[in-house]
Amino acid sequence: MENTKLDGNARVADIAEAAGVSIGTVSKVINGRRGVSLATREKVEKVLTTIGYEKPLVSTKTNQTIEFVVAGLENNGSFELVRELTYEAQNELIGVTVNRIRSGDDPKQHFAAILDRNPLGVVLLLSDNLAKERKLLASRNVPCIVINPVRRLDTATMTIDIDNWSGGIMATRHLIDLGHTRIGAITGPVDFPSSIARSAGYETALKRAGITPEPALMARGNYLSTTSYAAACRLLDMKDRPTAIFAFNDLSAVSLYKAARERGIRIPEELSVVGFDDVFPAQYLSPELTTVNQPFRAIARKAIEMILESRNGSLEERDAILPTHLVIRSSTATLRA
Amino acid sequence: MENTKLDGNARVADIAEAAGVSIGTVSKVINGRRGVSLATREKVEKVLTTIGYEKPLVSTKTNQTIEFVVAGLENNGSFELVRELTYEAQNELIGVTVNRIRSGDDPKQHFAAILDRNPLGVVLLLSDNLAKERKLLASRNVPCIVINPVRRLDTATMTIDIDNWSGGIMATRHLIDLGHTRIGAITGPVDFPSSIARSAGYETALKRAGITPEPALMARGNYLSTTSYAAACRLLDMKDRPTAIFAFNDLSAVSLYKAARERGIRIPEELSVVGFDDVFPAQYLSPELTTVNQPFRAIARKAIEMILESRNGSLEERDAILPTHLVIRSSTATLRA
Repeated sequence: MENTKLDGNARVADIAEAAGVSIGTVSKVINGRRGVSLATREKVEKVLTTIGYEKPLVSTKTNQTIEFVVAGLENNGSFELVRELTYEAQNELIGVTVNRIRSGDDPKQHFAAILDRNPLGVVLLLSDNLAKERKLLASRNVPCIVINPVRRLDTATMTIDIDNWSGGIMATRHLIDLGHTRIGAITGPVDFPSSIARSAGYETALKRAGITPEPALMARGNYLSTTSYAAACRLLDMKDRPTAIFAFNDLSAVSLYKAARERGIRIPEELSVVGFDDVFPAQYLSPELTTVNQPFRAIARKAIEMILESRNGSLEERDAILPTHLVIRSSTATLRA
Repeated sequence: MENTKLDGNARVADIAEAAGVSIGTVSKVINGRRGVSLATREKVEKVLTTIGYEKPLVSTKTNQTIEFVVAGLENNGSFELVRELTYEAQNELIGVTVNRIRSGDDPKQHFAAILDRNPLGVVLLLSDNLAKERKLLASRNVPCIVINPVRRLDTATMTIDIDNWSGGIMATRHLIDLGHTRIGAITGPVDFPSSIARSAGYETALKRAGITPEPALMARGNYLSTTSYAAACRLLDMKDRPTAIFAFNDLSAVSLYKAARERGIRIPEELSVVGFDDVFPAQYLSPELTTVNQPFRAIARKAIEMILESRNGSLEERDAILPTHLVIRSSTATLRA
């Protein structure tokens, strides 16, 4: 297709006409901004090449990072979130910058550094409040999302939660379906919303099956190794020990595996185990752990979506709750007669 | 200590004098630059507070990220590196930005985005070459480090490696010290320098103990689950099976655990297992895995050090090799008579 206007002096309007797109789209492509499909981008770039226009390799610098803030990169889902945020963000050529702010740290300097990078948005995975910092972000119009919030937040902050209650029901119902009736639980910290919701799901599933929840079968853990290990030992040392246990997170299931192994109790032959989270240990355990999956990919996608929507004023949902699902592996089996 | 010069009109020299530091140091603190110890920084800030000087919350923007580039964030040490880089970098208020570039991806746009962030340096954990991109970084004077290089690199690129050979010796010698003589191995890909070096260490340790390496006892794995699992099965199904196995990475050890469990072979009572890497699965396995530790913290510290040194022209070592050490947990035991 010949177009006499297409030489080095072509105006943006000429390029737009030749590519069959709007002037705004041409400008977006030239300036390396988002919101243009790959196909359209290629069409425009083809025209740009025709006229000998070369985009600068280093584009005008605008918001190019999403800042992930976490208290610690331990095996509590933080890695899965870093990974999925990175994988989702790369589609938009956004970098994910990881920041650790411990509960004892002064967050001021960290947030100054974060603001210096002029981020698209900030994703917090912290049990701490950081209320002042969230206010600071709001004052600069930097979208901020808290994943799995523990405390009540200001209205400027967006949240993404998972359906812990349904997850608790699914885990427990799976064990009931396998014939188990003496089903123990290793809980998380009593004041954590996630543990409260998982407990409620556990008790709901039992009651719906006509089983009365026994307080003695609910051992208090804390999502960490030592306390959860003690809880696991207590359950396994009961005279009439449970034939199945729902560990409220995968790390507690790891402790339960250890306690069972020390007692020569075989999983799943003599004890069925369900975890929650589906983080790294789950699939590496032997037997591989049946567990409730936290949808990290969906959480990451939702977080990026909310940040972009918040940026362009089209945000529909400030507080998202994403569904969980049960992943059945090899740690659960039919109750033996 | 009274100082009449210390009011709002104090000169930098006055502040330096009051704090007992050089003028350059005061300037560094005011401009939020690196290279000042925390104690010195606090001394200067105290004087600055006295005179009512307030540092701008958003400091002058200079290189503030280190870019970590990886082919995939799977459980191959990439998470440990992200974590340790983040932990080490935060001391300098540097953010670590994570980028995934798959082997099939066009890296051009990714590196344009990376250069846009004007990073302090780039850390690559990739088996691919990215030669063009490394050249681009060099042309812009952005320091670049490859961790665990597989192929030969240009001279502009710095490298950090670990002492795979010594690690192989330590793992094997530990098993020999426990009385084992039939010691199997599950290798990595035959053309990977790390696997070649670990093999050499394994054979060296055997020979030094007067044991002739048996080719049949070396099963070829590939650092991934399926092939390593097949290798594990082959070793365990031998008529005169080994009493101990050195898995060349932790993921292979996971496969070995699975194969052993399926055959009712107890670890460590009937089979001792040593891994390599000390990544996440290791301490969550039951029994916890004895393994050779890759010093991720030291690697991260070294990478940041090399980047900063390269920036200020004081780089001493272009290619570092860091020591490994054996972490003894519960998967190895004395050979039973």
